[in-house]
Amino acid sequence: MLIVFTGNGKGKTTASLGQAVRIIGRGKKVLMIQFIKGPWQSGEDFVEIHKRDMRQGTRDKESMFEVRKRGLGFVGILGDKLPREDHVKAAKDALEEFKAELASGKWKCIILDEVNVATSLGLLKSDEVLDAIKDLEPEKLVIFTGRGAPQVFIDHADLVTEMREVKHPFNDGNLAKIMMEF
Amino acid sequence: MLIVFTGNGKGKTTASLGQAVRIIGRGKKVLMIQFIKGPWQSGEDFVEIHKRDMRQGTRDKESMFEVRKRGLGFVGILGDKLPREDHVKAAKDALEEFKAELASGKWKCIILDEVNVATSLGLLKSDEVLDAIKDLEPEKLVIFTGRGAPQVFIDHADLVTEMREVKHPFNDGNLAKIMMEF
Repeated sequence: MLIVFTGNGKGKTTASLGQAVRIIGRGKKVLMIQFIKGPWQSGEDFVEIHKRDMRQGTRDKESMFEVRKRGLGFVGILGDKLPREDHVKAAKDALEEFKAELASGKWKCIILDEVNVATSLGLLKSDEVLDAIKDLEPEKLVIFTGRGAPQVFIDHADLVTEMREVKHPFNDGNLAKIMMEF
Repeated sequence: MLIVFTGNGKGKTTASLGQAVRIIGRGKKVLMIQFIKGPWQSGEDFVEIHKRDMRQGTRDKESMFEVRKRGLGFVGILGDKLPREDHVKAAKDALEEFKAELASGKWKCIILDEVNVATSLGLLKSDEVLDAIKDLEPEKLVIFTGRGAPQVFIDHADLVTEMREVKHPFNDGNLAKIMMEF
């Protein structure tokens, strides 16, 4: 099934990370492919998530969660100097990688982080994104995150939540600085 | 600082779990106290989350994430037979536990899961909940989750996101069943 987290409020990528936690608690693996986020790092890049073995108090050696950064950073703003073709190529490569990983059967859930943004910016066509999940088995979960989800994604999804910003501390410099830690 | 995740859509508790992942990636500990959820279990009850040590490929022995179920289940619906006083006592005890844990300084972030619901149901007074965070240091994070957040929580919060349901598969029995896995 397909979940879409969109809207202008905080909590879209975050909710997909939380979904990863739940699925791993059920003993299945989760992959996050990031379409926009570039080389800078966030908390999720430094974690390992494991299923706890209740009988033995042990766990698998390998993390059941993996993040792959496939974006080149902001597109066309905030000092981005890259040719647009580079962003397009990165997005298309990431989509191909997604298809291969989906076909591998290794993952219960694959999160396409910021794919809504990559599509609304025109790096990907909505048709090619939807084509990539046309044979999605219902017991596998794919999550699209990012503001401004194209309407066809919403039409196609099984569950859609809009994260609506009610209040945000970016106007307060001190709080914005503290927010960086979170 | 105080974050409130509210609204009728999926993603509130889930976003708080994702926030936990990020904070743990930064090497700090997270506690979730559940105010409504009873003895039944969800994916987050079976995970361990660790900060990865980049130099050594090792990690701490102990999980940096802990969930404590302090609710007695649904209140007044779905076959709930408990006297209301039992629910009130459980919620008040959970709030006292929160205060003690906050004062301990052990946690970077404490999530009060479904505290919005516990308050709007009248198990807790909004004043006593806000009083519990009156000395909150700005570099500590408290998250309130649950639909129907009282307006005073929103007024008091630094960041508020409303998770708005756009589309939900509960009308589809087959998908609802699959959803249970997630």
